[in-house]
Amino acid sequence: VKAPARITLLTDFGAADGYAGAVRGVIAARAPAVRVDDAGHDVPRGDIAAAAAALARYWREYPEGTVHVVVVDPGVGGARAALLVMADGRFGVGPDNGVLTPMLDSPGFESVRVVRNADLFRHPVSATFHGRDVFAPVAAYVAQGGLPGKVGPEAAVPVRLARTEPERTATGSRGVILHADRFGNLATNLPADLVRHAVDVRVGDRSVGPLRATYAAVAPGTPLALIGSDGFLEIAVRDGSAAALPGFGAGITVTVRLAGND
Amino acid sequence: VKAPARITLLTDFGAADGYAGAVRGVIAARAPAVRVDDAGHDVPRGDIAAAAAALARYWREYPEGTVHVVVVDPGVGGARAALLVMADGRFGVGPDNGVLTPMLDSPGFESVRVVRNADLFRHPVSATFHGRDVFAPVAAYVAQGGLPGKVGPEAAVPVRLARTEPERTATGSRGVILHADRFGNLATNLPADLVRHAVDVRVGDRSVGPLRATYAAVAPGTPLALIGSDGFLEIAVRDGSAAALPGFGAGITVTVRLAGND
Amino acid sequence: VKAPARITLLTDFGAADGYAGAVRGVIAARAPAVRVDDAGHDVPRGDIAAAAAALARYWREYPEGTVHVVVVDPGVGGARAALLVMADGRFGVGPDNGVLTPMLDSPGFESVRVVRNADLFRHPVSATFHGRDVFAPVAAYVAQGGLPGKVGPEAAVPVRLARTEPERTATGSRGVILHADRFGNLATNLPADLVRHAVDVRVGDRSVGPLRATYAAVAPGTPLALIGSDGFLEIAVRDGSAAALPGFGAGITVTVRLAGND
Repeated sequence: VKAPARITLLTDFGAADGYAGAVRGVIAARAPAVRVDDAGHDVPRGDIAAAAAALARYWREYPEGTVHVVVVDPGVGGARAALLVMADGRFGVGPDNGVLTPMLDSPGFESVRVVRNADLFRHPVSATFHGRDVFAPVAAYVAQGGLPGKVGPEAAVPVRLARTEPERTATGSRGVILHADRFGNLATNLPADLVRHAVDVRVGDRSVGPLRATYAAVAPGTPLALIGSDGFLEIAVRDGSAAALPGFGAGITVTVRLAGND
Repeated sequence: VKAPARITLLTDFGAADGYAGAVRGVIAARAPAVRVDDAGHDVPRGDIAAAAAALARYWREYPEGTVHVVVVDPGVGGARAALLVMADGRFGVGPDNGVLTPMLDSPGFESVRVVRNADLFRHPVSATFHGRDVFAPVAAYVAQGGLPGKVGPEAAVPVRLARTEPERTATGSRGVILHADRFGNLATNLPADLVRHAVDVRVGDRSVGPLRATYAAVAPGTPLALIGSDGFLEIAVRDGSAAALPGFGAGITVTVRLAGND
Repeated sequence: VKAPARITLLTDFGAADGYAGAVRGVIAARAPAVRVDDAGHDVPRGDIAAAAAALARYWREYPEGTVHVVVVDPGVGGARAALLVMADGRFGVGPDNGVLTPMLDSPGFESVRVVRNADLFRHPVSATFHGRDVFAPVAAYVAQGGLPGKVGPEAAVPVRLARTEPERTATGSRGVILHADRFGNLATNLPADLVRHAVDVRVGDRSVGPLRATYAAVAPGTPLALIGSDGFLEIAVRDGSAAALPGFGAGITVTVRLAGND
């Protein structure tokens, strides 16, 4: 079975004001056969890093041809450009502010264009709602097989979120907490192969013990370190929130001691 | 491509209790080929004006034939009627309490009927959940080409939300703040043609400066006035919330001075 | 018209982090023609009873063949099994922790299997996200007509949430409050036939008056008892929240006096 064309939506619009409905309506009118999935509309307002972290969780799960629209866009109407990214056979559409970083930085990255062809837009283009007027119609166009080359020229230097690389140390490795999810679980930049057989993991000064296999390895309320679903080290509290612990949060250093390094 | 039949849902059900699932389930059972879009389930509980403001944002973006269901219904089970509205080739289904005002007041308004044909309902009809028992089955019927005339007789005086008309003044125009969205942006009743070239906009006593083209025209944290995505004057704070400013909120007068009126 | 295959999703993932997108992406990749409905992603974190109460509201509204996925799974990665339930021609997929109780306890219950066939899973299977790695692919398999027998062997003793049965008393009946919904309405275990013609309903020591037909039967802000949309006694406050009243909440006894019992 050929996958039907599909668009996903990730925004900070919430589910009260009808903004997501307007985006879906534009797509329904222009691309009636295309399916639209809500990836979520509760990204914290204007939080570009949170949007990028969320996109990283799902964009490659979808089949090739899927168009991922991300609208977390505090600079709407200003000088920032709009982008169409191609990576691993999927498309990304959104503002040029870093939200599309997971696709731009992917090993499967193919190309990126500036969205510039106003013939594709919904008119009049408002100064405050490019989700409806720019991103939705461009996504509808691309999802139906529109030519990327007609959307606009190649982008020279798209905005990417800065990435802190983890380091190997004499006794193991060192990384950093990137962000918290709704559960208060803390993602880090330490890939599984840098932390396997860790005998001690520290968040700042505080030890959360050795690497564990599952949440169930510790008592409820206890912090722990384990490999998260993205293949990176995660700091969590069983049945609780690691983000709520004092001194635990984005930017804090995570130090890992591996077996045989005392 | 002919657009597949489509129903949208706007409610105050939230996304925790399974009520939206029940509505979708009834539609899936009765109209399996019809697509269902969530316009949003987080309208503030019982807030009829917020529901109407949200509906106004999306109902006309959808193609003709779309059925928009709105269930914000504090009077469920009481004396209020249920309505089927037709406007601009779209349908609206919901309680007769004002939530469908944008379609009733539209220049494209065609007709409105009282939902009365109990043969269409899910039985037994509960006293507390007409979304499942009345609105969903009626929407399923209409979306599949059911005859509006079979739903019920024409409605004599459907409930509309009161509207305050903006005024022209000696030096410009005067209107009022209608409501806030999730971002704290404040919608007004002043259409763009009454505020173009405004040199000063006041919310109550406080000036928010001249009309701006985009949020980016002011520094972060600064209030401003601009044309919102609905074509009306909007009061906002760049990267902040105008609704959080003291004295800014629904019902407050907005005074506009146009160029050449000192 | 034959109903297209359909999967519903109920989770505590929220709508910010992209987890629901990952689940949907896996389904889109493996079962591209299947429709996916969000039953809701805002179940309170780890609240198994709330998930079961929500599932009870919608699972049977959907047509036969629908696959209901419920992921509220605080024990993910630990010893708990995963289940595939069949009841009334519908399927349920989720952790063996009680979330599927409404289907297991249904009069239409047919059978229940342990999900064990790892050939169906997304690999590598993470320790923290079985929604993506186990439940989504199993649902995709079943929704497309996969054989339940290939998923795993019959489950001996699936976990069910304990149920408190209501009692008949000398003067009427006695039951208990089960849970609150978003509106602060309180569900009880008292079916309509045990409370019809009630002349007095008490929550703990406090009377909320006789059984009412609708919210509109009392003044705004007043507590009342009525038959909820599930056919059981419900305690509510018109235009308010019964859950917010002191002494009203899950586990509190509800005493009903029927007509002719003074």
